[in-house]
Amino acid sequence: MTLTERILQGDRLALARLLSELEDQSTQGAETLGDLYPHTGKAHLIGITGAPGTGKSTLVNRLVKRFRSNTPLNSSPAPSVAVIAVDPSSPFSGGAILGDRIRMRDLAGDAGVFIRSMASRGKLGGLASTTGAFTMAFDAAGFDLVLIETVGAGQAEVDIASSAHTTVVIDAPGLGDDVQANKAGILEIADIMVVNKFDLPGAERALRTLEMAMHLAQPGPSTLPAGWEIPVLATVATTGEGIDNLAQAIMNHRRFLKESGGWGAREQIRVETQLRQDLASFLLGDFMDRLVEGRFDTLVKAVVDRQLAPLAALEALLRDGDQ
Amino acid sequence: MTLTERILQGDRLALARLLSELEDQSTQGAETLGDLYPHTGKAHLIGITGAPGTGKSTLVNRLVKRFRSNTPLNSSPAPSVAVIAVDPSSPFSGGAILGDRIRMRDLAGDAGVFIRSMASRGKLGGLASTTGAFTMAFDAAGFDLVLIETVGAGQAEVDIASSAHTTVVIDAPGLGDDVQANKAGILEIADIMVVNKFDLPGAERALRTLEMAMHLAQPGPSTLPAGWEIPVLATVATTGEGIDNLAQAIMNHRRFLKESGGWGAREQIRVETQLRQDLASFLLGDFMDRLVEGRFDTLVKAVVDRQLAPLAALEALLRDGDQ
Repeated sequence: MTLTERILQGDRLALARLLSELEDQSTQGAETLGDLYPHTGKAHLIGITGAPGTGKSTLVNRLVKRFRSNTPLNSSPAPSVAVIAVDPSSPFSGGAILGDRIRMRDLAGDAGVFIRSMASRGKLGGLASTTGAFTMAFDAAGFDLVLIETVGAGQAEVDIASSAHTTVVIDAPGLGDDVQANKAGILEIADIMVVNKFDLPGAERALRTLEMAMHLAQPGPSTLPAGWEIPVLATVATTGEGIDNLAQAIMNHRRFLKESGGWGAREQIRVETQLRQDLASFLLGDFMDRLVEGRFDTLVKAVVDRQLAPLAALEALLRDGDQ
Repeated sequence: MTLTERILQGDRLALARLLSELEDQSTQGAETLGDLYPHTGKAHLIGITGAPGTGKSTLVNRLVKRFRSNTPLNSSPAPSVAVIAVDPSSPFSGGAILGDRIRMRDLAGDAGVFIRSMASRGKLGGLASTTGAFTMAFDAAGFDLVLIETVGAGQAEVDIASSAHTTVVIDAPGLGDDVQANKAGILEIADIMVVNKFDLPGAERALRTLEMAMHLAQPGPSTLPAGWEIPVLATVATTGEGIDNLAQAIMNHRRFLKESGGWGAREQIRVETQLRQDLASFLLGDFMDRLVEGRFDTLVKAVVDRQLAPLAALEALLRDGDQ
């Protein structure tokens, strides 16, 4: 049986192998993903993002347990759940692996759950690209929900999280004024807002501030289509308080997207962004391969020595490429 | 007099105009920057990064005041200081402008200080590119120190901060386990570590944890050359405690880089990264311009409809480009 067939039949070892191939950016990984592609498009992609200190990982664990519990949210049976934990600031991460083990133990023995951490390899773009590939793999393997958890509130993480169908942004009381300053940007990607650690002092105020900011905010480009009112929810992940409401809000947003046509619109943005990134990455690699050996380094040295401006170096490179 | 000449003579209005041109990515901005380029290479670029809630902005303000004070750190006179405050999660930011005003008032009337906030325009890469251009402009305008302050701990911010000569990473007690998990990655870019808010409970422990992690950490690619021992400093930015030590550590690192050859090595990495990004961005734009109208959208739709795998769409685009 091929790797593709095994994955489609729910073979977890085969899936794990594909994920490794994708992380290594192997040719077999890319080919398998291509074969699997017609079987994708069913999973609900849920981005969960928030600054460090918001209790994001605990919340995600609680949420997974809620989705997997015997009490269904709708009339349907419990959905299977894959979690991609993106930790971009840990390039050679021992941290991610340790985190994985702790989580694995917590949710062990449930065949409907698959958790995979991912640390950054290389530079900008690589992480988003691998996250996209992982998402497709889980989708094809039949997981109903794919949770993409990103640490931090930087542009790369925001991009990754906002490529999902549903984006949940987590806040917590007492994180200082930086977080306040970030609100404007965060509101533009949030479909659901959560104030976690609601048992801490200042929680009520954090909630009201967010609700007010929500009313003042201009709707951003990703909030299409109109008609969704962004809920601001209170949770205490450590006790499980409010998790039911959050799980329900995610399911409500799914139904809204399906009924309003937003599901397809978001998919299109995701495909477009990914194709553009892959194209840029290919064009750069191809261009560099065709350059005369040492040419790039010579130009870099000339720029470092102030003999050439960066733009002049770029133009020189492009003239070379034309020949 | 040309804009270039005015900037070289220290005309602040001319500098402000160039920054706006660079943010708008205008042709005149790019040309002026090219003319200014031979006059760059003197400034000490200092990246300051840390998660929200670490008190970064207050610390940067204190640091600027310390550098500008009448008590010199070395025998030299007080250096002039430019600050670039990068706030990537605020795409349509009113926040950045408000922050600017508060800071301006605080450091008003000092001609040796220039503060400029920058919000994200567009997608990945643009921010790093504009930050690089701003840095060059301040360098050419004769600022001795350029502080690049980034919010968050995501990949993009890490990339921006670590493109400096000296990277200061700020931590604070009580930010939760996410921050702990991020330590591994952060250590690889830090030249100087700071535990701010040292008056809070748990500060001593945070300091010791960092010191221990430092001993366990593998040196990352950017820690070249060998011989620098990363100091872990305690500060209370609100009172100014420890700021002297931090300013001194930054100056020590500068001397170390100059003496060890690390100064040039870091410059080369920065130029290389920037040239590669600019090249990728140009190649993509050029490729898209030469495509038949509507071709990209058609392929995107085929991928969304699962008639074509993303890789097959990429190959189809590349075949088009060859013709």
